[in-house]
Amino acid sequence: MIDEVREFVREQVVPHEGLLLACDFDGLSAALEPLRLEVKRRGWWAPQVEREHGGMGLDLVTHGRMGEVMGWSPLGHYVFGSQAPDAGNIEVLTEFGSAAQKERWLGPLVAGEIRSCFGMTEPEHAGSNPTVMSTTARLDGDEWVINGHKWFTTSADGASLCIVMAVTEGDDVPRHGRASMIIVPMDAEGFVHERRIPIMGDEGAGHFSHSEIRLNSCRVPAENLLGERGAGFAIAQQRLGPGRIHHCMRWIGIAERCFDMMCRRAATREISPGVMLGSKQTIQNWIAESRVEIDASRMMVLDTAERIDRDGVFKARNQISAIKFYVAGVLQSVMDRSLQTHGALGMTDDTVLSFFFRHERAARIYDGPDEVHKAVVARRVLKAYGVRV
Amino acid sequence: MIDEVREFVREQVVPHEGLLLACDFDGLSAALEPLRLEVKRRGWWAPQVEREHGGMGLDLVTHGRMGEVMGWSPLGHYVFGSQAPDAGNIEVLTEFGSAAQKERWLGPLVAGEIRSCFGMTEPEHAGSNPTVMSTTARLDGDEWVINGHKWFTTSADGASLCIVMAVTEGDDVPRHGRASMIIVPMDAEGFVHERRIPIMGDEGAGHFSHSEIRLNSCRVPAENLLGERGAGFAIAQQRLGPGRIHHCMRWIGIAERCFDMMCRRAATREISPGVMLGSKQTIQNWIAESRVEIDASRMMVLDTAERIDRDGVFKARNQISAIKFYVAGVLQSVMDRSLQTHGALGMTDDTVLSFFFRHERAARIYDGPDEVHKAVVARRVLKAYGVRV
Amino acid sequence: MIDEVREFVREQVVPHEGLLLACDFDGLSAALEPLRLEVKRRGWWAPQVEREHGGMGLDLVTHGRMGEVMGWSPLGHYVFGSQAPDAGNIEVLTEFGSAAQKERWLGPLVAGEIRSCFGMTEPEHAGSNPTVMSTTARLDGDEWVINGHKWFTTSADGASLCIVMAVTEGDDVPRHGRASMIIVPMDAEGFVHERRIPIMGDEGAGHFSHSEIRLNSCRVPAENLLGERGAGFAIAQQRLGPGRIHHCMRWIGIAERCFDMMCRRAATREISPGVMLGSKQTIQNWIAESRVEIDASRMMVLDTAERIDRDGVFKARNQISAIKFYVAGVLQSVMDRSLQTHGALGMTDDTVLSFFFRHERAARIYDGPDEVHKAVVARRVLKAYGVRV
Amino acid sequence: MIDEVREFVREQVVPHEGLLLACDFDGLSAALEPLRLEVKRRGWWAPQVEREHGGMGLDLVTHGRMGEVMGWSPLGHYVFGSQAPDAGNIEVLTEFGSAAQKERWLGPLVAGEIRSCFGMTEPEHAGSNPTVMSTTARLDGDEWVINGHKWFTTSADGASLCIVMAVTEGDDVPRHGRASMIIVPMDAEGFVHERRIPIMGDEGAGHFSHSEIRLNSCRVPAENLLGERGAGFAIAQQRLGPGRIHHCMRWIGIAERCFDMMCRRAATREISPGVMLGSKQTIQNWIAESRVEIDASRMMVLDTAERIDRDGVFKARNQISAIKFYVAGVLQSVMDRSLQTHGALGMTDDTVLSFFFRHERAARIYDGPDEVHKAVVARRVLKAYGVRV
Repeated sequence: MIDEVREFVREQVVPHEGLLLACDFDGLSAALEPLRLEVKRRGWWAPQVEREHGGMGLDLVTHGRMGEVMGWSPLGHYVFGSQAPDAGNIEVLTEFGSAAQKERWLGPLVAGEIRSCFGMTEPEHAGSNPTVMSTTARLDGDEWVINGHKWFTTSADGASLCIVMAVTEGDDVPRHGRASMIIVPMDAEGFVHERRIPIMGDEGAGHFSHSEIRLNSCRVPAENLLGERGAGFAIAQQRLGPGRIHHCMRWIGIAERCFDMMCRRAATREISPGVMLGSKQTIQNWIAESRVEIDASRMMVLDTAERIDRDGVFKARNQISAIKFYVAGVLQSVMDRSLQTHGALGMTDDTVLSFFFRHERAARIYDGPDEVHKAVVARRVLKAYGVRV
Repeated sequence: MIDEVREFVREQVVPHEGLLLACDFDGLSAALEPLRLEVKRRGWWAPQVEREHGGMGLDLVTHGRMGEVMGWSPLGHYVFGSQAPDAGNIEVLTEFGSAAQKERWLGPLVAGEIRSCFGMTEPEHAGSNPTVMSTTARLDGDEWVINGHKWFTTSADGASLCIVMAVTEGDDVPRHGRASMIIVPMDAEGFVHERRIPIMGDEGAGHFSHSEIRLNSCRVPAENLLGERGAGFAIAQQRLGPGRIHHCMRWIGIAERCFDMMCRRAATREISPGVMLGSKQTIQNWIAESRVEIDASRMMVLDTAERIDRDGVFKARNQISAIKFYVAGVLQSVMDRSLQTHGALGMTDDTVLSFFFRHERAARIYDGPDEVHKAVVARRVLKAYGVRV
Repeated sequence: MIDEVREFVREQVVPHEGLLLACDFDGLSAALEPLRLEVKRRGWWAPQVEREHGGMGLDLVTHGRMGEVMGWSPLGHYVFGSQAPDAGNIEVLTEFGSAAQKERWLGPLVAGEIRSCFGMTEPEHAGSNPTVMSTTARLDGDEWVINGHKWFTTSADGASLCIVMAVTEGDDVPRHGRASMIIVPMDAEGFVHERRIPIMGDEGAGHFSHSEIRLNSCRVPAENLLGERGAGFAIAQQRLGPGRIHHCMRWIGIAERCFDMMCRRAATREISPGVMLGSKQTIQNWIAESRVEIDASRMMVLDTAERIDRDGVFKARNQISAIKFYVAGVLQSVMDRSLQTHGALGMTDDTVLSFFFRHERAARIYDGPDEVHKAVVARRVLKAYGVRV
Repeated sequence: MIDEVREFVREQVVPHEGLLLACDFDGLSAALEPLRLEVKRRGWWAPQVEREHGGMGLDLVTHGRMGEVMGWSPLGHYVFGSQAPDAGNIEVLTEFGSAAQKERWLGPLVAGEIRSCFGMTEPEHAGSNPTVMSTTARLDGDEWVINGHKWFTTSADGASLCIVMAVTEGDDVPRHGRASMIIVPMDAEGFVHERRIPIMGDEGAGHFSHSEIRLNSCRVPAENLLGERGAGFAIAQQRLGPGRIHHCMRWIGIAERCFDMMCRRAATREISPGVMLGSKQTIQNWIAESRVEIDASRMMVLDTAERIDRDGVFKARNQISAIKFYVAGVLQSVMDRSLQTHGALGMTDDTVLSFFFRHERAARIYDGPDEVHKAVVARRVLKAYGVRV
């Protein structure tokens, strides 16, 4: 199956990347529609979603392998109905949603008929410490009244619902138990989509965008609470484990794509008559180092996925932190080497490299910057040596 | 003077960067016009151009110091009439242009009334070996007939003339003596401006763009030859020496800007109540390493400039190669650290960081990639040990 | 079993390291004798040797795991009868030795009653190209007459035999088929042990030493040929595959030891009253990075071992090259970080760190330097893209 | 003069390095005696000492240049009477010594008739915070009674006096004002030379050694106080500024020596018939990178020396911290590349490389580890941004 998916991505999906690079999002989503139908026809849709909810029901390891293959193209996950943040939201709804919530939102989300977003990050607070949060929600009769300011709300543009993280509990509760998740329809009164944030020169649109949001006394019914009151961080944590596997495997797919382009370039670019770029030892160093680093990344991530499948997220949490910064670092190195191998061409939008270079720089930042994950890993290691730092 | 220029850049020029980040080039150039007039009024215009031709006539070292200050903003050089590729073209015209050529082109160029471009790089050939070139020019009566394909022709959009490098001599002449420079008015028959190349998601416009060009039996008068026949590479080489000083000092300006932003962020971003980001040792490492690397860069470049001022380009050529890759590397490190320090904000166009990050990645590529300069330096070193490699 | 071996190494072997650090080799080998007997008693002796020849007959993967545990101490492999170069020589004798050769040498070698060495590297030729070799052997009647100069002949001091690589075939044979292996008793006429080479200030002795050797018309019986004439490189290649697994797993053991020491130091060194060194983020970065790099190394090496066990050395040869340079690099980083964490103490012989630091620097050099392995990997990758470089 | 000194070092001093590598210290010092006499005869003795006290009286910049040239050999500074820790002790005695102290110690020290050491570092406390110190001295009548434990007391073996740093003031005084310097003759009662610490496998001897010391109620006359009571750290700080210039310039000398060896090796080592090692691009990268890093180092250090000459240590303190970690890092990189270029030969004591590799690893540790200096630089930078971290 993986081999067939790989071929599909390379033959059917990759040719549409030009529209992405040309920033034509409307044309792009129209062009991808037939591919999504074809994916559904072949039974590859929503690989991470349980079968009863309309997906393939793959375990983490198999989905990881598929994630790498989809990640070959920036369009892959979208075409397969496996795109963030819908994938994570579906997971949360499946596990914690009430019957009514599932009925209203889950089906259309899985089917790809609507899109969703996740409102967590706030510009005023460091992402490294998610428990510090200013957005609040208080019950006023049978409604939540939400006030707050979010940004990097991925894919908010055109989405139908936003799962908003807001502080609902008081200071008498420990920090980790103060926030809750609330489903906010995007057309709710007081929900303001301020702007698509221009990122690396490109504000994107639709699924391929990140927004700034304001909640000005935004009101939603009390039953829109998702899970328990105060369970927001616990659910988010649960969501992050598999989410990082998805990210890491997607990054590995990107790294493999960049690696392939680097090798192709090295094999075909003439630097003097009859002498190919690949004959230069510096390029050879980059190829060899990239090869081993990507392979090491894949082993680490799949091993972590296996651990999660077997023992759950909690027991694998240290490995999850470790792969987050390790694979993000490998990705950046490989992208940089591949770009350098392409010379001036690598700077242009004539290849997908420059898209990866500027957008995937964020890999070292979102879901916790490298520096935070390193500290987390080290602290756990040192605890075993009897010291809390 | 440098201090005044610095203040002017920070107070007057920087506030206009928003238009650049919003990709509004027409608005931008209109907005900058008053600043350019003010610069002329203050006597700071065209610092690198000799006094007799309308500039400040600074030596390389002083211009280097000013270049750093102008480089603080991506708009700086343009506002001061010191922007590439006009600066280099003015230099070439001054030194090698005929009286007629100077009369027609030099004045308006120096005055900033027209703009120019330089057609050297070709997509089919590695920039690492500039003597391999496909564009040809042959004399047909009293006209040059030029055929070729160029790209990364910076600022071609809206320029009035292009100095085109083309092979005019036959195989009987050694490689380095085959090409000549020819002045081609942009409205010449057969001169085709194909496109502004989209670079890192942004095709730019006007001065801030890079074009792909075709010369289809493009005809210009024989007297448009600039300098001697076959002297193209020699002139280009001459042009590159000071050009690299300009680039390096501009990069140092950018690095200082990124450094300043990193420190500001570290000093003001709260990571937990009362604790600033700058208290983290990783951030401190980045600040300390960046500080010393930027300082080392400045000393190296100014020392090279002094050497050129004193002994000429040829004697300083090894230092010129060395600073090219060294400073480009420092620039990339500092940009990367500063971006990481900003977290998600660094990815956005809310600051100038992401503009630098994606556009200045080219520093390691243009004017010869790092790898070529390293080989050049090493070969010269090894020659002193009696071996030619 | 691995756990028991680990405990044995830490409790029984490590305490003897002081003698090694004090350069007292005679005292050391006497002190280790009882441990070797105990190892034999427990059935852990010669883990890599087939059962029929007196070892444990472990597959590569299991032996790899045990190799890591033995590698915790520089004395480990010796205590377990698994030390290079005897281990490799035993492998070669087992597979290619004649009945007579086995009878004379194999038993005592496996039993650890005698020691052996392997004469391949020559000071006059780059190790990166082993087929360039000056040592020759010609048949004179029923004797080989060998002339040559070898160095880095590990453990020659006190060994009973040396397997010498010498050119026996003429220029009409391709380079890879010119050399043969010949068993040379160390007391053979013309075999000169010139010196133990002082390495990083320490010439060592006995098993823990590396010698320079001369063969001055050294004569041995014709039947001392090991394997076929001209098969020298083929056999050496065969030997190197598993040999690299052994090295890599030993390095991982060393890296784990250094990691453990780094964590211990971080957990116990007070930098100000009540504040431990491990609270510094730089140290935390080192711990986290080391943790993930060591784990990645282990996965890569065990996966390669599994591949060799399953498909043979030839099919795994690219992975073998990859782990060689990757793990050697990780080892050096981890050693360096651990040493820096120890401050001045790390420079002393009061811990085993400085022993590792200076002796294991060679990991990036022997059995092919990093640079050669990178080129090998890259060339194989590029061959798949249709280019030979 | 510098050129003559350079030639003298290369022709006269370098040939004696074999004795150092063979760990024969008695033979070594005897062999160097005639060289020291010759240096005195030529007027090059004690370049850093003021003329009135018997030296050359060079300013910091000139002495820096000479320090680089002397640093070419590990024997250089000793041969020129400029070796640490005597050089620093002479400086302190000159500036802070009483007339009686000068009379007794200064002359013989400058003349090289006796040697001295400096007792500051204690094994129980992190060198990163020198104000935490356990050694105490209390006045008992007209004698100081000193108790403490020191290590890394360089050149203690065979020295005549030790300048000991000890806490003399109580907790009512701020930390920085608690310690004093006291001159302790090595034959004082209660002064115990415990051992020469074996460092990287080598305990050294005489000048080339580092000792562990105990002071067991060691008694010296009250007038042995050097400078004011409580002025210990202030004097030490004063001493460290120029001391770091000396270290850095010596390191640059070492780096140049390693660079020269790397180039020589690259130019002469054949890797296949007629092809020199220097033709490999990886080696070329190392040569180019090393060249520019060493040049940058020299500029930074000489600029700092000039600043100290002009404005004093205090104003240059940030630059002093910066060069400390920057140059130590460059040194380690260059040594490592040079060693790798030499292959197995680089591991041996057949060249001076392995001596540098193991002993100069300490450059990143002593006089404050890299990490401390980086934090110091960053904190000063951030203070200008209004935050104290």
